[in-house]
Amino acid sequence: MSAKADLISEIEDLVLANHILHAQGVLDSYGHVSFRSPERPDRFFMARAMAPARVTASDIMEFDIDGEPLARGGRSVYSERFIHSEIYKKRGDVRSVIHSHSPGVIPFSVTDVPLRAIMPPAGFLHTGVPVYEIRDASGMTDMLVRDPQRGKALAESLGDHAVALMRGHGDVVVGPELRTAVARAVYTEMNARIQLQAVLLAAGGRVEYMTEEECTLRKAGDNLDKRGSGHGSDRIWEGLKSELIDKQD
Amino acid sequence: MSAKADLISEIEDLVLANHILHAQGVLDSYGHVSFRSPERPDRFFMARAMAPARVTASDIMEFDIDGEPLARGGRSVYSERFIHSEIYKKRGDVRSVIHSHSPGVIPFSVTDVPLRAIMPPAGFLHTGVPVYEIRDASGMTDMLVRDPQRGKALAESLGDHAVALMRGHGDVVVGPELRTAVARAVYTEMNARIQLQAVLLAAGGRVEYMTEEECTLRKAGDNLDKRGSGHGSDRIWEGLKSELIDKQD
Amino acid sequence: MSAKADLISEIEDLVLANHILHAQGVLDSYGHVSFRSPERPDRFFMARAMAPARVTASDIMEFDIDGEPLARGGRSVYSERFIHSEIYKKRGDVRSVIHSHSPGVIPFSVTDVPLRAIMPPAGFLHTGVPVYEIRDASGMTDMLVRDPQRGKALAESLGDHAVALMRGHGDVVVGPELRTAVARAVYTEMNARIQLQAVLLAAGGRVEYMTEEECTLRKAGDNLDKRGSGHGSDRIWEGLKSELIDKQD
Amino acid sequence: MSAKADLISEIEDLVLANHILHAQGVLDSYGHVSFRSPERPDRFFMARAMAPARVTASDIMEFDIDGEPLARGGRSVYSERFIHSEIYKKRGDVRSVIHSHSPGVIPFSVTDVPLRAIMPPAGFLHTGVPVYEIRDASGMTDMLVRDPQRGKALAESLGDHAVALMRGHGDVVVGPELRTAVARAVYTEMNARIQLQAVLLAAGGRVEYMTEEECTLRKAGDNLDKRGSGHGSDRIWEGLKSELIDKQD
Repeated sequence: MSAKADLISEIEDLVLANHILHAQGVLDSYGHVSFRSPERPDRFFMARAMAPARVTASDIMEFDIDGEPLARGGRSVYSERFIHSEIYKKRGDVRSVIHSHSPGVIPFSVTDVPLRAIMPPAGFLHTGVPVYEIRDASGMTDMLVRDPQRGKALAESLGDHAVALMRGHGDVVVGPELRTAVARAVYTEMNARIQLQAVLLAAGGRVEYMTEEECTLRKAGDNLDKRGSGHGSDRIWEGLKSELIDKQD
Repeated sequence: MSAKADLISEIEDLVLANHILHAQGVLDSYGHVSFRSPERPDRFFMARAMAPARVTASDIMEFDIDGEPLARGGRSVYSERFIHSEIYKKRGDVRSVIHSHSPGVIPFSVTDVPLRAIMPPAGFLHTGVPVYEIRDASGMTDMLVRDPQRGKALAESLGDHAVALMRGHGDVVVGPELRTAVARAVYTEMNARIQLQAVLLAAGGRVEYMTEEECTLRKAGDNLDKRGSGHGSDRIWEGLKSELIDKQD
Repeated sequence: MSAKADLISEIEDLVLANHILHAQGVLDSYGHVSFRSPERPDRFFMARAMAPARVTASDIMEFDIDGEPLARGGRSVYSERFIHSEIYKKRGDVRSVIHSHSPGVIPFSVTDVPLRAIMPPAGFLHTGVPVYEIRDASGMTDMLVRDPQRGKALAESLGDHAVALMRGHGDVVVGPELRTAVARAVYTEMNARIQLQAVLLAAGGRVEYMTEEECTLRKAGDNLDKRGSGHGSDRIWEGLKSELIDKQD
Repeated sequence: MSAKADLISEIEDLVLANHILHAQGVLDSYGHVSFRSPERPDRFFMARAMAPARVTASDIMEFDIDGEPLARGGRSVYSERFIHSEIYKKRGDVRSVIHSHSPGVIPFSVTDVPLRAIMPPAGFLHTGVPVYEIRDASGMTDMLVRDPQRGKALAESLGDHAVALMRGHGDVVVGPELRTAVARAVYTEMNARIQLQAVLLAAGGRVEYMTEEECTLRKAGDNLDKRGSGHGSDRIWEGLKSELIDKQD
């Protein structure tokens, strides 16, 4: 493919990435995804300021390494675009950056419990997940990364890791290519949700379970039900098929 | 209206009740709703054994006070129909009975934490919510109320209350009319979900909150953003409208 | 725009606000939103008593500062309309009031854990979130704000804040304009959900995490899989695209 | 039916099983379901490597007892197919195997809290739910069951049980027929979610409940509202109908 065709194809992936991350609950009507220009490593591509679920190819703009749009044309741009520019400046290995308010990770940004890998697809978390505390370098602020200095401090917090949390705010996820960054953002959120449940479970209390006898009798009952009534395994199958149809309606 | 028109109208409500309780997550592909015959207090109406979301008027059958269908015609009937018959037998004031696997109430049936009214529409819980322990009267079983004796023991556990939990299984909800029973089943589930969260919250730990200064600066930032960038209150409004459109697609 | 055109436009926003708050899970089939009349500060606009998701412009009625409709025309009105009238009476700066059963905030209304700002868009919570205990001024009631006295006590609890919780019931959210009040109601709910998770996380237990070696080997495995099998990053991308299509069906 | 017609019918069930398990949240874009060949017990059928929600009959392939496809034809196959082959090898009674990342069970795989039967349809858990710790037999790995040795160790962990968890990864569920295995996978996930809530509930804190008087007054209030205002039981019914319509739109 020509360089131009490559770029068009990557812009299509960027549009799709916005939609996928919205459908997965990583982005709501905020957050942004970018990729580094394949031809000019000192530039990157990202949507104008808008809801991710609505992004189309014509909304994608090119930015320079200082986070300024090459051709603004009166369009709004994300005030936190310096998250992207400063990470591209510091991390030559990064070709894609995602910033989101990923809801499952925020609890880990305001407690002492570090986000850690539980499940294989989140194995990239193993080098550690730093928490960027904007108070450290910038004192009391509105917590938005709205200038290059804050972006630089965030990039320093991130270090060589794949993910940094932003205290009370969300996270930034990076990758060597766009699709990898998207997968990481999705599994960071999923690992966070499951880790929360696991941590809670480990501190739980006593519950009344079924006895072995009740379980065995249940099984006998199922067989009984096959002869005329409503609880056999074909009935469960019909019920599950019915729920499937409801979802497809 | 004639008695016949009244009955047709109540059967339509019964069909709708099945669909509503499914949409609200009270019934999955199991559970059943009935109402007492307006003309013959020793009879009641309920669907044949099938998934609630699919019930139509032609699926409604008439049962006698012993739980037996008047005209079975080869159709499957719920093996737990004795929940209904025995409650109608004992409780002259009850005109509608709902049995469900309402997922939010099951945790309250296997712990020592009683289900209690937190929110006004669940005020009917105030007389107490007994837990029917099938082991007490029937020993080890498959936990299904599949005969009149078990139905009678459940009706005794219920006493004069509006709701009884069934240990590890679900609940039974009754009312002086069908619509009231449906509202009670919905708010029993909702109260249970909120009570669980409240009980957990009350046992929680320490979290890092935003400072007053951060909050104030955020507000100033919003005003700043109104002049050209992406975080003002019109931007939030547009984002919320965008999410609305997604849900309506 | 003429005053009349302004009013029509604000009524359209009010209709949309009902739909948005329903789609965001702040309102269910209850709750109400109002705005102060732009021409007559002693009047406000709000829907007749009905489900928010169904409100259209023709359902909007005008109310006086005592909460009475100017032209009732046989329509039902919300019994808790005094929440609105008494706040408009006391708070000259408020141009919009929302009352909801916002499910995430109710746990904070029945425990000692105060609702506090965790995330920037909820920064408006920083002045504090009082809990209106209806028992304090009115003793034992049905917990509904169904007369001016109760409305006045709620307005006093609210003080100069943006949000007051109502014990076991929900909340009231106010703003200097309709769109701001809507954004506040949405982020009050979202902050509550995330704060609950954070508070629980902070009190959790011990969990078995992946080791660094497992994480590293997983990464090597991913590269391995690129040569022929099913777990590489393109496979994840295809999977995520597939989930996207499911949601758009 | 002829043997061929039987096989076609079981393949249709296998396709449906993939869709049902996706709709129920057991499978996401990963995981796989298989059944043992009715004619050749040393063979089994399973989809090529793809997202379960998209599987059609033409995607089903036949595998030998060593997990190798009989006619690959350039198609991708699941790298973890040895989960299936090794279980079929060891367990003559098993005619269907499901491997999933069932999200509710993962917390039980990384804590000391065993997954146990709470509700009757999960009674098959009563023999115990072992946790397969891949470190025990294979040391540090990428945690994927990508060869026969790991599959064999998993089959040994499973023993005679219906379900084995895989630490940090998911589970494997088996059954004497495909429909039974599907029902078991669905109720394993559901039991896990409810058990988590119950265990948390049992360790919770103190909450402010409604008083008996508030509850009683609420009830009186409902009757009051029937005469003219917005909170009676017909209003709740209309609200619930309204929510039903929203879901069916």
